[in-house]
Amino acid sequence: MPDIPKTQKAMVIEKTGGPVQYKDIPVQQPGPDEVLINIKFSGVCHTDLHAVNGDWPLATKLPLVGGHEGAGVVVAKGNLVNDIEIGDHAGVKWINGTCLACDFCQQSDEPLCAKALLSGYTVDGTFQQYCIAKAAHVARLHKDIPLDAVAPVLCAGITVYKGLKESGARPGQTVAIVGAGGGLGSLAQQYAKAMGLRVIAVDTGDEKKKMCLEQLGSYAFVDFATSKNVVKEVQEATEDGLGPHAVILVAVNEKPFQQAAEYVRPRGTVICIGLPAGAYLKAPVFESVIKMVTIKGSYVGNRKDTAEALDFYRRGVINSPFKTIGLSELQTVYDLMHKGAIAGRYVVDTSK
Amino acid sequence: MPDIPKTQKAMVIEKTGGPVQYKDIPVQQPGPDEVLINIKFSGVCHTDLHAVNGDWPLATKLPLVGGHEGAGVVVAKGNLVNDIEIGDHAGVKWINGTCLACDFCQQSDEPLCAKALLSGYTVDGTFQQYCIAKAAHVARLHKDIPLDAVAPVLCAGITVYKGLKESGARPGQTVAIVGAGGGLGSLAQQYAKAMGLRVIAVDTGDEKKKMCLEQLGSYAFVDFATSKNVVKEVQEATEDGLGPHAVILVAVNEKPFQQAAEYVRPRGTVICIGLPAGAYLKAPVFESVIKMVTIKGSYVGNRKDTAEALDFYRRGVINSPFKTIGLSELQTVYDLMHKGAIAGRYVVDTSK
Amino acid sequence: MPDIPKTQKAMVIEKTGGPVQYKDIPVQQPGPDEVLINIKFSGVCHTDLHAVNGDWPLATKLPLVGGHEGAGVVVAKGNLVNDIEIGDHAGVKWINGTCLACDFCQQSDEPLCAKALLSGYTVDGTFQQYCIAKAAHVARLHKDIPLDAVAPVLCAGITVYKGLKESGARPGQTVAIVGAGGGLGSLAQQYAKAMGLRVIAVDTGDEKKKMCLEQLGSYAFVDFATSKNVVKEVQEATEDGLGPHAVILVAVNEKPFQQAAEYVRPRGTVICIGLPAGAYLKAPVFESVIKMVTIKGSYVGNRKDTAEALDFYRRGVINSPFKTIGLSELQTVYDLMHKGAIAGRYVVDTSK
Amino acid sequence: MPDIPKTQKAMVIEKTGGPVQYKDIPVQQPGPDEVLINIKFSGVCHTDLHAVNGDWPLATKLPLVGGHEGAGVVVAKGNLVNDIEIGDHAGVKWINGTCLACDFCQQSDEPLCAKALLSGYTVDGTFQQYCIAKAAHVARLHKDIPLDAVAPVLCAGITVYKGLKESGARPGQTVAIVGAGGGLGSLAQQYAKAMGLRVIAVDTGDEKKKMCLEQLGSYAFVDFATSKNVVKEVQEATEDGLGPHAVILVAVNEKPFQQAAEYVRPRGTVICIGLPAGAYLKAPVFESVIKMVTIKGSYVGNRKDTAEALDFYRRGVINSPFKTIGLSELQTVYDLMHKGAIAGRYVVDTSK
Repeated sequence: MPDIPKTQKAMVIEKTGGPVQYKDIPVQQPGPDEVLINIKFSGVCHTDLHAVNGDWPLATKLPLVGGHEGAGVVVAKGNLVNDIEIGDHAGVKWINGTCLACDFCQQSDEPLCAKALLSGYTVDGTFQQYCIAKAAHVARLHKDIPLDAVAPVLCAGITVYKGLKESGARPGQTVAIVGAGGGLGSLAQQYAKAMGLRVIAVDTGDEKKKMCLEQLGSYAFVDFATSKNVVKEVQEATEDGLGPHAVILVAVNEKPFQQAAEYVRPRGTVICIGLPAGAYLKAPVFESVIKMVTIKGSYVGNRKDTAEALDFYRRGVINSPFKTIGLSELQTVYDLMHKGAIAGRYVVDTSK
Repeated sequence: MPDIPKTQKAMVIEKTGGPVQYKDIPVQQPGPDEVLINIKFSGVCHTDLHAVNGDWPLATKLPLVGGHEGAGVVVAKGNLVNDIEIGDHAGVKWINGTCLACDFCQQSDEPLCAKALLSGYTVDGTFQQYCIAKAAHVARLHKDIPLDAVAPVLCAGITVYKGLKESGARPGQTVAIVGAGGGLGSLAQQYAKAMGLRVIAVDTGDEKKKMCLEQLGSYAFVDFATSKNVVKEVQEATEDGLGPHAVILVAVNEKPFQQAAEYVRPRGTVICIGLPAGAYLKAPVFESVIKMVTIKGSYVGNRKDTAEALDFYRRGVINSPFKTIGLSELQTVYDLMHKGAIAGRYVVDTSK
Repeated sequence: MPDIPKTQKAMVIEKTGGPVQYKDIPVQQPGPDEVLINIKFSGVCHTDLHAVNGDWPLATKLPLVGGHEGAGVVVAKGNLVNDIEIGDHAGVKWINGTCLACDFCQQSDEPLCAKALLSGYTVDGTFQQYCIAKAAHVARLHKDIPLDAVAPVLCAGITVYKGLKESGARPGQTVAIVGAGGGLGSLAQQYAKAMGLRVIAVDTGDEKKKMCLEQLGSYAFVDFATSKNVVKEVQEATEDGLGPHAVILVAVNEKPFQQAAEYVRPRGTVICIGLPAGAYLKAPVFESVIKMVTIKGSYVGNRKDTAEALDFYRRGVINSPFKTIGLSELQTVYDLMHKGAIAGRYVVDTSK
Repeated sequence: MPDIPKTQKAMVIEKTGGPVQYKDIPVQQPGPDEVLINIKFSGVCHTDLHAVNGDWPLATKLPLVGGHEGAGVVVAKGNLVNDIEIGDHAGVKWINGTCLACDFCQQSDEPLCAKALLSGYTVDGTFQQYCIAKAAHVARLHKDIPLDAVAPVLCAGITVYKGLKESGARPGQTVAIVGAGGGLGSLAQQYAKAMGLRVIAVDTGDEKKKMCLEQLGSYAFVDFATSKNVVKEVQEATEDGLGPHAVILVAVNEKPFQQAAEYVRPRGTVICIGLPAGAYLKAPVFESVIKMVTIKGSYVGNRKDTAEALDFYRRGVINSPFKTIGLSELQTVYDLMHKGAIAGRYVVDTSK
């Protein structure tokens, strides 16, 4: 049995608006259906900043330990838990636990469970050294997966993989990824390629263009800022000019959400993943009906999506660049985020 | 061989804006892949009025014989036609013919064919006694189907059946039909019931309420005009209060298109069929993503949908009330339509 | 809190081969994720006889309380259980519990879970007054459902409903049910009808013919014993002579399993549910490939199938005849079963 | 307009059993919905030998020009043909034409059309310089595709691609290909990899093992001849030991058809493509039901499958080795085939 301390280091928010404080707090004990995970690394996501700022409609727990992209080692478990062992590697995700019994859980749509516990939001998350999670929901991590690099995959990777699955695009078909040069977009391109899809990247700037075409596997790039006609250009980037079979929206502003329905192929699907504040989907009824367009929201992955997305990662086909700093320096990351000055993902090391 | 006259009676529009004129025009001969159908009855649809008025973005053929809900008897056929015989009963639909070879036709999405011929719009339609149609596209009508009563089913019936199929709702699930008391809505309720679905009718007025609940098979009615909270009331009409699995929009104004995404069940599907002029689909990105809502346009049915929708009709589970007048009196129907004074469907008798 | 006795009446098998003994045994206490159900009625199924006789490859628990179609009232629950309350009505099914975390459970295929607990087989079942079950798996029963009548639906009803879903047959399509006059077949016909399917019943004898056509909703009956050509006759019973879209095999002998692939429609699906001892599926490779036939095994339903099947039952569209006797007389039912002398289903009353 | 001769060279079978004779025959003129294709190259398939020998249940046309893997240039077309032009490159497949109007054609299952014309079997095929085909069915070939190399893809490539699609296996899942080292198997492995699937090759011999693992993209190889337990070995080759999600059977003997159901994953699908003479699918009912296994026949691709399979080929991810000889030497190929002495595919050059 591992030696578990009574107290630990954590980053805690006492009240909405912050600040986050680096302090000692007690280590919890897992309930019968829970595990205690010694978090080694945790990714930092924009959602964490929303939790600090309290600018989403849903209130957080307080005081709160944030974080929902944690990777570590199982150090204790409840007596009902028999499919994960002490010493196993595991990941804590946004969905910390669900009822496993409601209409949605019964259909593998656990993210839609009304009783879902949200890590680092409605329950304490991964910005601490020892985190509790429902055993049925922790991500199983093979020991050959590096715990630092996988951390961001646990949120961003799973989410874009889910979106690609929901799009219904089949191998050989074409998908446009809007916001391709960002964190979600970079992962989406790689997943899409690994799934046999052909990718048109939509973003702006020569640096992103080069990265999308040379490193991330897209075969075409449309610059939404300099293009005279984005709709036409995206359609012309497809073999027959009829547009991509699917569009994945990971952009953070509203316009692309209203443009995608215009260039998607008849019978095509527009998947919304990104969550620009206050944005609306908007599409003309006439054209949407005549073209039989589908517009679909895709939230985070369920447990099966998680296992699949991690399996792609483990096979080495997904690469997600990151920088590591100590947990105690989390505020620095938030400050950079606030300024929009982050390229790639930050991962905190809970031992520092 | 039937005796085919050289000339026939038809209602012809010489220029956009009308009027329609009752006159003698030549009977055409079918090409190698076409049939000539002696139209006995034809339904009159709002689309026909749009064709007269020219208020849609797509231009009509001129001079034009309108109409796209025609039922009659095959009287001649081209020499490539060998799966329909002279004397067979057949229907002419909005989709008069398609290329049968493009990417969409190859996948049974003939209505999306860029070369689709549209009856009574881009080719002459069913407001004449002898109408040409592509043999592959005419609806096959069993001889026990009455040619007058089936006419409106050829457009409205097929369209709502298609929408219900596209919704993905399964037997036992719940579907809300918005605009339930109108022509499309009345048919939609009956098809839904025959497909094992449970129906919530959304419309207004006690007369419509009574009709929906007592004749058309709905188990609940929500009056959108008098309800204090349509969203809440629709959701509460479902067993578990989580909302219907699908919503079928056949309304002719914009608001319901923006409201449906709010009350549809998480993971549910909103199907847009109706085409309010200039209307927009609009839904908040955040809620649509979190609830994983699907919004989907559904156009007219393909040939298989047609056969299936007619099969339901033939088995007597669909009833579509209509009034009959002579073809020569078509303008009267348009005048009533213009005034919004039509209840049920008008069918013209081409012999009068 | 209900008053729970320390001991109760139960039918117990001490060793494989029987006999079953009516005796007093202790009432168990539920674990943290379990409920204790006061079973009022339990259906008796052929599987129960297999458990006594030990003639299946899988060994039972010993001593064993059999039974897996139990309906009753929740009287106690573990402290993790918060979505079912004391006093609620609930059903205990063949699948008593599963891990809820493996690859199959993650995809709503709980019946395929390698750790599934089987009521009345690997854990004690419903032939006792107080039965333990995993809370996540008990069937929720609305209080307007009679506990005696619903008992057989909890196994046979769910199983045939699942098979119909797995067939992929859509409303309006045709399904042949082989063994239509038996317990599973009678329920299958009613579910099929409620799902908008058109049914051809295959069985033998005038009495069954009359029952299928007049009471159970089939539109055609093929007598496999007297027909000169079953394949031809089933195909001719379909509108276009091409055969049914699906075949549901609930027969208890091998031949129909080998005949169905011949008469099913090209692209059609043959669903195997019945489990004749030692039987083999067999179909010629050439014809199966050329016709693109699918042959598929369907086991018991998952939790969602259970909820849906019960919802149909609750709406009054499913009728399952049964006879009631005291739990203490269970051996009498086994004796009748052994002789093949049971028509309809027996339900035991645990209070007698 | 191209200069079309009145007569041409062809290989003709006058009576069943052969021989094939190299002779001059008239060039036909296309009907209104047909094209005339100047065949440059044609693959030779085992089916062609069956057509000579007449050992299949279906009789051929006589005299017969065989061949159904022809690639060439459109030189004439009927007056209804407007989506392919003179000078375009095109391929003639096994399905030469279908009615495009029956229940199966309406659902994109043209290969199931009862009126399908079969190239080189019920209509003259591609072992001639000028071949007739229905315009709607000829494969469109981009001009950057080499006409000799693509010939075998037109039959074998499309067929295995179709089988992989029918299996329902998704990117990231595992598929076992049985008969992996043969012509169909080699193509199947490459298509599977391009579709994001992970492949276990099943065949025999070190040479095939090397080829499958090093050239064709499989990650594991099971030698069915030397393995002590094929079922166990295939299952152990999957990550969790539960077996592959799908099995593609392209073997030419019966045993693998009866073994696959044992090692496929619960809920998995076994696809039968190969047609061993007189073989039977056979699987135990009990295990097939308990594991919910699907067994499915897959015939040749439809027009959309054709376009997709060719698109993969065109992107350079599929390689199909072949040898070229003159059309006049066709008998030599048949002789090699008869002896089982062909490795790879033969392609005939119609100019020699």
